Amino acid sequence: MSDEKRTEVSELGEFGLIDHLSKDVRFYNASTIKGIGDDAAVMKVGDELIVTSTDMLVEGIHFDLSYIPLQHLGYKAIAVNVSDIAAMNATPKQVTVSLALSNRFSVEALEVLYEGIRMACEAYKVDFVGGDTTASRSGLMISVTAIGTTTEEKITYRSGAQENDILCVTGDLGGAYVGLQVLEREKQEFLGNPEMQPKLDKYPYVVGRQLKPDAKMNIIYELADLGVVPTSMIDVSDGLASEIFHLCKHSELGVAVYEDKLPIDKETYETAAEFSIDPNTCALNGGEDYELLFTLKQEDFEKIKNHADIHTIGYMHQAQNGRVMVTRSGNTIPLQAQGWKHF
Amino acid sequence: MSDEKRTEVSELGEFGLIDHLSKDVRFYNASTIKGIGDDAAVMKVGDELIVTSTDMLVEGIHFDLSYIPLQHLGYKAIAVNVSDIAAMNATPKQVTVSLALSNRFSVEALEVLYEGIRMACEAYKVDFVGGDTTASRSGLMISVTAIGTTTEEKITYRSGAQENDILCVTGDLGGAYVGLQVLEREKQEFLGNPEMQPKLDKYPYVVGRQLKPDAKMNIIYELADLGVVPTSMIDVSDGLASEIFHLCKHSELGVAVYEDKLPIDKETYETAAEFSIDPNTCALNGGEDYELLFTLKQEDFEKIKNHADIHTIGYMHQAQNGRVMVTRSGNTIPLQAQGWKHF
Repeated sequence: MSDEKRTEVSELGEFGLIDHLSKDVRFYNASTIKGIGDDAAVMKVGDELIVTSTDMLVEGIHFDLSYIPLQHLGYKAIAVNVSDIAAMNATPKQVTVSLALSNRFSVEALEVLYEGIRMACEAYKVDFVGGDTTASRSGLMISVTAIGTTTEEKITYRSGAQENDILCVTGDLGGAYVGLQVLEREKQEFLGNPEMQPKLDKYPYVVGRQLKPDAKMNIIYELADLGVVPTSMIDVSDGLASEIFHLCKHSELGVAVYEDKLPIDKETYETAAEFSIDPNTCALNGGEDYELLFTLKQEDFEKIKNHADIHTIGYMHQAQNGRVMVTRSGNTIPLQAQGWKHF
Repeated sequence: MSDEKRTEVSELGEFGLIDHLSKDVRFYNASTIKGIGDDAAVMKVGDELIVTSTDMLVEGIHFDLSYIPLQHLGYKAIAVNVSDIAAMNATPKQVTVSLALSNRFSVEALEVLYEGIRMACEAYKVDFVGGDTTASRSGLMISVTAIGTTTEEKITYRSGAQENDILCVTGDLGGAYVGLQVLEREKQEFLGNPEMQPKLDKYPYVVGRQLKPDAKMNIIYELADLGVVPTSMIDVSDGLASEIFHLCKHSELGVAVYEDKLPIDKETYETAAEFSIDPNTCALNGGEDYELLFTLKQEDFEKIKNHADIHTIGYMHQAQNGRVMVTRSGNTIPLQAQGWKHF
């Protein structure tokens, strides 16, 4: 390697960087079933599969303490990792939490953060088993690793979708992104006039979607009760379109998504209008919804069709048919993806 | 909680903080065998035990890129976590690596860091299965989680030592701390006169101990070959005395350590003298040696007594007999512990 060459991380982007750096990875253990490239890594232990996911939240990049309360941040740090475990059709069992923090944080502030972590652990019935706590020179960083279990019969990868499978998504989309716009606007107004109280009451749902995301473990339990194993699955953290592209890429298929099927909450719709942004763009590219996106065999449709929280939004077809969206007016246009850019 | 109360993290220290924040933790899964309070968490899966450890390395706190090369840093980040897995008498299987980095790092710099990670994965036969890569506003943070496996017959906790057990430590101690003093001195001289080349050739061993620590997995495999299961074990990351105290506390015992049995390398000894610091203090309180400290039943002594890399340094006795060191002159003095203080 020449000392003179300097490639900026931004030239590759987050996914490109991960692909680039992990291209020479080799495995030494037959027990390792899946490494980089899904929502979680997979290891075989006896008759069970252990799935492991990790996520790092960095102050100033992933969160702004001027509007997210520490308790919500603690909850969110656990929830986003549990969401990755859910996306493998697995049950979370343990989490470790590593914190790096500057001396601006008091023990009392950390107690509030940990209260959020504890509430999330209770909600998801996951055990907080360890971690690391260290100083940082600036700001707060939280790195969480979640470990879950599942079986070979139940595990769901990004790569398992088949032609003609139905594409489903849970809950509703775009709310977290719109909520972030509200919080950012109120922050700017507050910075301009510190006497001003933030006006968040009008936006309870979308602000809640941003500040207190929930992992959809209930869907995982309900699918099990219904006897349904998705053919592929991913959680919606970077925006629906980006996640659909991951399923297409890993399953080597194309997709048709129906614009009029995108589930968007009324408050999301109205707030997006207030900000003059297209609600469909929020749903497709907003990110941080932490819903589950999955594909089902057509024969499973009957089992989920009356589920209030599962929406069929399209279907998988051959790769040569492309990744398309059928608009409300019946036009077929290319689906556009633009994930979060941290770099 | 009152808004007015503010307790500084430094008042509790790292261990006090962890105890304080984790005191209300409860478990929801019968599979969770061990949470916070050992080198790794433990989960039962079928007939096996899954052990999980996590460590975060923060620039400016745990490492200084003005003297640790990125490749060594990558290696070290893996090694320190593997060392925790070793301390449970387990075999590492998978690691996840999360990075937060500022835009001062190029893709080429990250390739060098990853090369170190890859070398460590090869050395320990552990699979790099995932992680997270994100931006930071300043500096580099690396959070590694290691997952290993063992069995109920082999797992070794801090709490298992019995009265009259022999206390053993591997390798030699104090070198990493003395190496850090050398590196710090050369850095200061370089800052005073950038024309000056660092003089490290005289200190290859101690500088290597600081920059490229190795986890003692070989000892774990050799103990297995010898049919020896330690009664308790911990890795020496914070200094021997601090680790001995952990074994005493968790096993509810006292200890007698013989000063003349502390294994100290000749170069460590001579370099400590050059810095006018007591080599025994380096061994007892230096930290970052990543050796293994463990207790054995007396009947196992025959099996290890000829092992070149295992040193018997004392024995466990009743708690009421205290935690003492027997000096070279035959005096019995209280053993002093002072771990690393990051806060």
